[in-house]
Amino acid sequence: MDFDLNDALAVLERTPAVLRALLTGLSERWTHRNEGPATWSPFDVVGHLIDGEETDWMGRARIILAQGPDRRFEPFDRFRHLGVNEGKSLEQLLDRFAELRVRNLEELKALNPGRQQLRLTGEHPEFGSVTLEQLLATWVAHDLGHIAQISRVMAKQYREALGPWEAYLPVLHR
Amino acid sequence: MDFDLNDALAVLERTPAVLRALLTGLSERWTHRNEGPATWSPFDVVGHLIDGEETDWMGRARIILAQGPDRRFEPFDRFRHLGVNEGKSLEQLLDRFAELRVRNLEELKALNPGRQQLRLTGEHPEFGSVTLEQLLATWVAHDLGHIAQISRVMAKQYREALGPWEAYLPVLHR
Repeated sequence: MDFDLNDALAVLERTPAVLRALLTGLSERWTHRNEGPATWSPFDVVGHLIDGEETDWMGRARIILAQGPDRRFEPFDRFRHLGVNEGKSLEQLLDRFAELRVRNLEELKALNPGRQQLRLTGEHPEFGSVTLEQLLATWVAHDLGHIAQISRVMAKQYREALGPWEAYLPVLHR
Repeated sequence: MDFDLNDALAVLERTPAVLRALLTGLSERWTHRNEGPATWSPFDVVGHLIDGEETDWMGRARIILAQGPDRRFEPFDRFRHLGVNEGKSLEQLLDRFAELRVRNLEELKALNPGRQQLRLTGEHPEFGSVTLEQLLATWVAHDLGHIAQISRVMAKQYREALGPWEAYLPVLHR
């Protein structure tokens, strides 16, 4: 599927509502348990998505669009949220994420990058030259990957409760 | 995590709204493409969830709770939806799923199985004796697995658009 800005926006706009529908009001047994040592709970994943809104996606888009002399991105700290969200409620995180996402998409829509701008590049700290289009497509797939992760982590909480069905649900073995 | 009927209901009740938040109004480029030959699109997955509501979960729960002489379940036809939903819109399917789910959960809440009833068994056509608790836990994990699947199938549509990021998103390699 070729990248299309409206297709991308359609998914990015929906993510806060998907997370609310999935998680709001659920017991911490669902929202605060993970898949094992050094893995994330649904709560942690929402924190990570907030970090992306605050420090990653639009910051990098701005660097690309500005086309300044130094177009290297800051490395994205994938563990920042683990320190800053302790003691917060999941509702606070969901609200924060929704607010940041709306603001970021307003900015992106105002910039409204056309075909030529989507081909402009920045410099990823690990793998070098990337286009704005690749960045925005990754933002979309990253959202979807984390929705899948949250669902998987929740499903795994019932692994033992399933009895013989456990072997038949692929989501439990990923 | 031990099985708890209220925890299970909390997830089962949310699934229709999660699917609506994720899929309503999206282009068919997102909703009608799959992961390759003999795989399902998000549209197909919603069709499969409808089949579960119509022919599987509560039918089996009733067989267990009735404790009649023959407690064998009908095999679940995992491909029924591929024939019956052709020509329907995704909105029709989402509405149908939500309606069936509400009805089924009303029935389950009215039955309100207690500890002893959750231990009653039926006969699965493939793997034999299963309890009501295992059936209900599987219903929950099955929902979550299919939410993860829909997100993964959508993410994969952008596999090529991601450029070098493709290697870094685990959801694209499942």
